[in-house]
Amino acid sequence: MNTVFSGPVRPTPGALSPLRPAVRARVEGGFWAERRRVNAEVSLAEGPKRLEAAGNLANFRAAAFLRTQDGAVPPGFTGDFQFQDSDVYKWLEAACWQLADTPDEELAAEVETVVGLIAAAQREDGYLQTYYQLGGGEPWTELGWGHELYCAGHLIQAAVAHHRATGSDRLLDVARRLADHIHSVFGPGRQVDTVCGHPEVETALVELYRTTSERQHLELARYFVDRRGHGSLSSGADRGHDRDPGPEYWQDHTPVREADEVTGHAVRQLYLLAGAADLAAETGDPELSAAVRRLWRDMVTTKSYLTGAVGSRHDWEAFGDAHELPADRAYAETCAAIASIHFSWRMALLTGEAHYSDLIERTLFNGFLAGAGLDGRTWLYVNPLHHRARAHERPGDQSAHRTPWFRCACCPPNVMRLLASLPHYIATTGDDGLYLHQYATGGYGGDGLTVRVATDYPWDGTVTVTVEEATTGPRTLALRVPGWCTRYTLTVNGTPVDGAGESGWLRVTRAFAPGDTVRLDLAMPPRLTVASPRVDAVRGCAAIERGPLVYCLEQTDQPGGPDPDDLALDPGAPLTVHRQPQLLGGVTTVSAVGTLPVASESAGWPYRPLGTGEPRSGERVALTAVPYYAWANRGAGAMRVWLPLAGRD
Amino acid sequence: MNTVFSGPVRPTPGALSPLRPAVRARVEGGFWAERRRVNAEVSLAEGPKRLEAAGNLANFRAAAFLRTQDGAVPPGFTGDFQFQDSDVYKWLEAACWQLADTPDEELAAEVETVVGLIAAAQREDGYLQTYYQLGGGEPWTELGWGHELYCAGHLIQAAVAHHRATGSDRLLDVARRLADHIHSVFGPGRQVDTVCGHPEVETALVELYRTTSERQHLELARYFVDRRGHGSLSSGADRGHDRDPGPEYWQDHTPVREADEVTGHAVRQLYLLAGAADLAAETGDPELSAAVRRLWRDMVTTKSYLTGAVGSRHDWEAFGDAHELPADRAYAETCAAIASIHFSWRMALLTGEAHYSDLIERTLFNGFLAGAGLDGRTWLYVNPLHHRARAHERPGDQSAHRTPWFRCACCPPNVMRLLASLPHYIATTGDDGLYLHQYATGGYGGDGLTVRVATDYPWDGTVTVTVEEATTGPRTLALRVPGWCTRYTLTVNGTPVDGAGESGWLRVTRAFAPGDTVRLDLAMPPRLTVASPRVDAVRGCAAIERGPLVYCLEQTDQPGGPDPDDLALDPGAPLTVHRQPQLLGGVTTVSAVGTLPVASESAGWPYRPLGTGEPRSGERVALTAVPYYAWANRGAGAMRVWLPLAGRD
Repeated sequence: MNTVFSGPVRPTPGALSPLRPAVRARVEGGFWAERRRVNAEVSLAEGPKRLEAAGNLANFRAAAFLRTQDGAVPPGFTGDFQFQDSDVYKWLEAACWQLADTPDEELAAEVETVVGLIAAAQREDGYLQTYYQLGGGEPWTELGWGHELYCAGHLIQAAVAHHRATGSDRLLDVARRLADHIHSVFGPGRQVDTVCGHPEVETALVELYRTTSERQHLELARYFVDRRGHGSLSSGADRGHDRDPGPEYWQDHTPVREADEVTGHAVRQLYLLAGAADLAAETGDPELSAAVRRLWRDMVTTKSYLTGAVGSRHDWEAFGDAHELPADRAYAETCAAIASIHFSWRMALLTGEAHYSDLIERTLFNGFLAGAGLDGRTWLYVNPLHHRARAHERPGDQSAHRTPWFRCACCPPNVMRLLASLPHYIATTGDDGLYLHQYATGGYGGDGLTVRVATDYPWDGTVTVTVEEATTGPRTLALRVPGWCTRYTLTVNGTPVDGAGESGWLRVTRAFAPGDTVRLDLAMPPRLTVASPRVDAVRGCAAIERGPLVYCLEQTDQPGGPDPDDLALDPGAPLTVHRQPQLLGGVTTVSAVGTLPVASESAGWPYRPLGTGEPRSGERVALTAVPYYAWANRGAGAMRVWLPLAGRD
Repeated sequence: MNTVFSGPVRPTPGALSPLRPAVRARVEGGFWAERRRVNAEVSLAEGPKRLEAAGNLANFRAAAFLRTQDGAVPPGFTGDFQFQDSDVYKWLEAACWQLADTPDEELAAEVETVVGLIAAAQREDGYLQTYYQLGGGEPWTELGWGHELYCAGHLIQAAVAHHRATGSDRLLDVARRLADHIHSVFGPGRQVDTVCGHPEVETALVELYRTTSERQHLELARYFVDRRGHGSLSSGADRGHDRDPGPEYWQDHTPVREADEVTGHAVRQLYLLAGAADLAAETGDPELSAAVRRLWRDMVTTKSYLTGAVGSRHDWEAFGDAHELPADRAYAETCAAIASIHFSWRMALLTGEAHYSDLIERTLFNGFLAGAGLDGRTWLYVNPLHHRARAHERPGDQSAHRTPWFRCACCPPNVMRLLASLPHYIATTGDDGLYLHQYATGGYGGDGLTVRVATDYPWDGTVTVTVEEATTGPRTLALRVPGWCTRYTLTVNGTPVDGAGESGWLRVTRAFAPGDTVRLDLAMPPRLTVASPRVDAVRGCAAIERGPLVYCLEQTDQPGGPDPDDLALDPGAPLTVHRQPQLLGGVTTVSAVGTLPVASESAGWPYRPLGTGEPRSGERVALTAVPYYAWANRGAGAMRVWLPLAGRD
């Protein structure tokens, strides 16, 4: 059993957070174990090959070579983006979390090779970004688009993971030298007085402080969080560059403490808020705590898809207006779902409240997981909730066609690091006991209460928690009741108990003994969900859900092949569930009944007077819905989450 | 009275087109006369000041100066875009059409000054594009983004306008020298064998052929139309440029003759199709004729907004998928509406069919006109059908806030040239007589039948046509019955006649005499319109229309100030009309009845189980709708065209 925490996000003993990630956290079976197996055996294992093919590793080699050549002309940079080093760092972080969970000699050797390459590429003064080292220009002069602090942040996170996984300081030393260099540029004296166009270094610096106890990293994080929002960033559009997204894009229009709306580039916004939440936890700053609570609430109530995905606009990968949530043009970047989980997790620790993990559950099973192909080697960058049979996508934006890698390859290694570290998002310990935020078969605990969880979640709503170790005296075992659940039963050693669901937590408090069993049965009937009238995009439609899963119709599953865009859903017909072990890696499908229109398409002007309807034929067809996360794994085709309700044309 | 045609688009005598623009075409009162007055007195008059302030004229001066300096280092280019010369050409074209309509010494002098500047900037070899002349790089090496042929096309169109308006060859000679240079590069031998990233030169070359009778221009237009669609264009993304929109963006994915769907950048697509329609008319090419008919139909049936606007995606200013027509994120560029009118007009001439002008009417009064502020000096680039009270817009994309000019200023001078030439889109003559496509007070005719039209259209549906001149023998006067109209009466000298509406035309055939009066009364009750179920974005909503006008709710008009986003429309309540001469330059408003929700917004997760409604309070409120074209002229605020229907939550 682990005795040292080896996951991401570890508040210091002095932090405000009432909850801390459980020291023991192992997923050992069920749904997520299988996803994590594919992640380890395929995605992580093939990572170095991908990074080699895309030139990311070549850039480090070139930078290392350059360091040995006095005054040489820099070799060229391979790739299209200033931030490509970060792909390497994210893979490395993922590999380290995986190694912390499950030793693997081959992977460990790969990690050390890459760590050596990174160390060799670092300049004497601590600077490290191969794009600028390889002729991309003068460091620290293009803060808007340069991504230097963004890359530094990912390096720091990888170094923390490497340190926690291996105990080694080898990469941590590289990160500290880079951090020191950053202090010399941005620290007291402020050689450069602005922020990075892409937040990320903030949360990383807090974690570096947590790991090294060096307080200047926390102070620098505070500077970056508070410096943003004062219009100090330039897009370069004033220098003739044809790219001016406006200051909201990188949250430079208003300070975090004053903001009341999540806006701009979704990943930028949420990485920033993850850092702000970390900072609030470590500093106890009430204004910052209030701000991150307020902004999380804004995201959830006005800018979240049913899948938990966020960032609706393709245009600049941004949050839209409140309730601007188109199903077809949902950008819903995989990285934004990951960033949302990062942010929510920090909020869960900071507040002890259950609803943050409720959103994490929804996002994990839907908006996030859709980004990862079942095969572990194909990906989606954008995750719409509606795809037409004949869709127009531009390079890099494909959704129905999963892609082995991207020119801008931020998403795949980001998926890898979340799956590798996933056990650490499942359980926390507080002063009073153990909190289970997610349900996955495995072992969790620490601080006097350790349990085994057995469940077939998300296919079945029964969760059996068996106590393995317990200190004497009363402890609390808290179980989250998902927001989707309206009916459940809780028993302790077979006896029903109330549990008094307070703000989403069921609490069982008693002197636990090994072998005690707490069982939660969450009723999981399939259900139809509708949206607020403010969500114009899906008015008059319903979505099929079951448990934490959002379902969708894929063209391939409809007998006789009607286009999902031609169907309406009969809301009065029963929904039935079917366990299908052979389908899509094993899923439960939901059957429904739809109706077909008289004609598949009117051939003229698509607007008509009210009351001169295009009646549906009433021809009824059986529909099969599959979990949304599994779509686009059987070739391209039409897909819909939101189905028009029959009888409302 | 004019005896020489002095507008755009003049098919040669040998062209296929059964209809030709009427030689006499003067708008002399009513709705469009007022818009054209503002265009002349404000927009056109202030054009040179705008072009000076934005640096467009400075670029021509710098290029002219450079020609006098052997081997000098080029002065810098002012502005951000390769295509800025085209703003000057479009203003010039507009000014020339205006001069052809109404002489104006001051404007004529401005025109000659600018013509002189352009002539002075042209290189000895005929090349002309100030961006490349002023150090932007080697000509003809960046066909994807360079816009050199695009600018050449606008120069040619301006030169044709200048020639038709003034009889002078001064600018036409510049255009011919540039065209000769283009022939030397792209003509037989093909020094460069690809097309311009932005179509436009195709339609211009056909018009140059029509003006000069030099057949090589027609042949070159044919080459450019047929060369496109074979993947010969490069975005430069292969050279590390961070811009790869994919080949559909500039219609280089499939040849026009084979395409069955309008796609990619909307203005590019529609300028290309305008050129293809011109080419089909002049060559009688049946395959090309079939292609432009097919593509027009695709646009109308699957990719048009109720306002006639097209191009739904902000992302790359593109057509979306079929039926992807969001109201809030409608890009609906003003230039795309203009391009649609250009294309439809050429189709009307090519086919003689009325429905092309039906779309022109809808687009003119709605999707196009919304782009022009009532003051003649503020503009919209994007034209959504829904704007939220708190909206996020990036620089250049503002919609509720009209802008005096744009960094990319394609739209304002494009509006100017359409308004200046508008009389030439109203009437055509065919072998059998006179066709009235649009209804505007004025005088129209030629070829043996000339009439005066008097009407208060679009506020009133009565159109009185009085014959002024008629040759002996039977002639036909054809009047278009708008697609929105379901009830009308037609009289000749007071006697009802049938007119036998065949494919949208009412035809009165007789031996006309001066003083004969044909009167068309189009019933114009306000009406509620719904969309095809395929248009997901506006399901469960209706729009208010009256005559050719689409209406909208603006926040400022709602008593007590409820946000339009909080309202539902009672479809059973009567709609009433109110003439308001003092409002928005004089409009007819429509009153309706709405209901308010219980609470303006639920404060949590915006999705809920079907059947657990958020009932509306039933509180009824009077609503006032104004014509959509006039929105955003009274400060920023929420606006909706599509209103949720009460009782369908």
